[in-house]
Amino acid sequence: MEIERANAFAVGPGTRPEMHDALSAAVREAGGSIVPIEQAHVLIWDDPGAAAAFPDYISLGPDVDWVQLPFAGIEPFVSNLDHEHLWTSGKGVYAAPVAEWIMAALLTSFRDMHIFSKATSWPPQSGRNLLGASITVLGGGGITRSLLPLLQPWGCEITVVRRTPDPLPGAATTLGLDQINDAVAGADAVVVALALTDTTRGLIDAALLAEMRSDAWLINVGRGGHVVTEDLILALERDVIAGAVLDVTEPEPLPADSALWSLPNCIITPHVGNTPQMGLPLIADRVRRNTALWLSGEQLLGVVDVEAGY
Amino acid sequence: MEIERANAFAVGPGTRPEMHDALSAAVREAGGSIVPIEQAHVLIWDDPGAAAAFPDYISLGPDVDWVQLPFAGIEPFVSNLDHEHLWTSGKGVYAAPVAEWIMAALLTSFRDMHIFSKATSWPPQSGRNLLGASITVLGGGGITRSLLPLLQPWGCEITVVRRTPDPLPGAATTLGLDQINDAVAGADAVVVALALTDTTRGLIDAALLAEMRSDAWLINVGRGGHVVTEDLILALERDVIAGAVLDVTEPEPLPADSALWSLPNCIITPHVGNTPQMGLPLIADRVRRNTALWLSGEQLLGVVDVEAGY
Repeated sequence: MEIERANAFAVGPGTRPEMHDALSAAVREAGGSIVPIEQAHVLIWDDPGAAAAFPDYISLGPDVDWVQLPFAGIEPFVSNLDHEHLWTSGKGVYAAPVAEWIMAALLTSFRDMHIFSKATSWPPQSGRNLLGASITVLGGGGITRSLLPLLQPWGCEITVVRRTPDPLPGAATTLGLDQINDAVAGADAVVVALALTDTTRGLIDAALLAEMRSDAWLINVGRGGHVVTEDLILALERDVIAGAVLDVTEPEPLPADSALWSLPNCIITPHVGNTPQMGLPLIADRVRRNTALWLSGEQLLGVVDVEAGY
Repeated sequence: MEIERANAFAVGPGTRPEMHDALSAAVREAGGSIVPIEQAHVLIWDDPGAAAAFPDYISLGPDVDWVQLPFAGIEPFVSNLDHEHLWTSGKGVYAAPVAEWIMAALLTSFRDMHIFSKATSWPPQSGRNLLGASITVLGGGGITRSLLPLLQPWGCEITVVRRTPDPLPGAATTLGLDQINDAVAGADAVVVALALTDTTRGLIDAALLAEMRSDAWLINVGRGGHVVTEDLILALERDVIAGAVLDVTEPEPLPADSALWSLPNCIITPHVGNTPQMGLPLIADRVRRNTALWLSGEQLLGVVDVEAGY
């Protein structure tokens, strides 16, 4: 796709003023000119919650060549993807805070901070070490690449499962998705950091949970749809695994009547791998860099594979 | 003190069978001969909870030259220290699990895992990053030396406060105790990893807490006596600081009627920096190594400074 790199940026739909202002400033700082959508060649989408408004909005901009989306997982937008536009997402941008959340989840669960946080009198001693533990990470994308350096000083035995078993720096073993059963069998914790696709939806089911050690933790920071929730509830109730820390659920928010809330070995966090507060400066920086790359005719960061859907 | 390195080890008082067996095995593995206390030249003390039994027990061993104590902080034993014996403790041995606990405390508090652990329905998003935070560590001993490598990938601004302001690898700034007010003023978290001495008892009082940022966390893994508890309760009630994570309290166990239990911004863990389960293989390894060093006439590890009391 050969595109003239015109300097005509729309930042919209504008329904989230704080984000609109931050992304508009980022475009201007990189030398971009902001114009109405009707004259735009670039659309910087500035409201992650407004996917439903996208078709009407983009129809106002017949000259738009490139659309920058403001999140890493673009499932709400997948139905809008086409081959008429170049699409970029925030993939990789939010990886560092999400990797930090994974470390928080590992240490909270291993050192029983979730139990101690609820105590109202001196509880029994408990806990186990992350130092030297075996950790299996499902997914070899930006989150995993940010996680591995954080795990490096801990002397962990790290296995990464990804589409293609190309080695990753910091992982002792890299396996393909077809070897997932072997990969989870020996782990103290299994971390789900996959993109949600037809291949990975429902990957964490009763059969896979049964392959895990009974003292192992499941950590999900991918998407709720990776896990068959009813299977997980049964596994947690019957101590098939030690516990789960979930930053993503299906649906979100997780309804108050979900059985997951009452399980003492399930910790649910409200999709805070990166919060808007943590993420806004990160996506603004990505928009700044991509604006500059666009204007200088260089390859953009975070280009979406329209066929793969991420 | 010139001592003949006799191969005659007593392991006692024997009131904790699991520890007794593990430390006896460690002595034998290093080539040590185990004898009754009456004939011993070395006493490997094998019950951290039995300090009160020590004077009677040591009086049975008039030839004992060296006493190996089984913990890092030896306050319960300080009244027994003398210049007639060579004393070694487990200092440095337990540092790695304690440093891990500090990381767990930092990430639990910064990422609000204590709040999410208590939630029974989808809570509001919250949390802040450890990545890039300013961390001040009070104490430059083994725990701090184990902590700094774990913090290395996080891009934190690290200040260490210690008796002598000699630089420590991994710390951007090292200050003496006389500059403690400056050291805590800018920190997102202040970690207490000091030995308890006359100089450091009560160091964390209302005046020092007032120097801290109102969004800063206090993390205490030293001893309960470092903190003036009433001052901390007031500071937490009045939001002088953001919160506290305490692995040590005064007294321990902390009574159920302590106001600390009901404060939502106070997380108390039951002295689990290292648990007996984590610590037993570590102290056994130290005993093994010190037995070998004793028999080969070399300098022992963890020699206690009798005057300093640690």
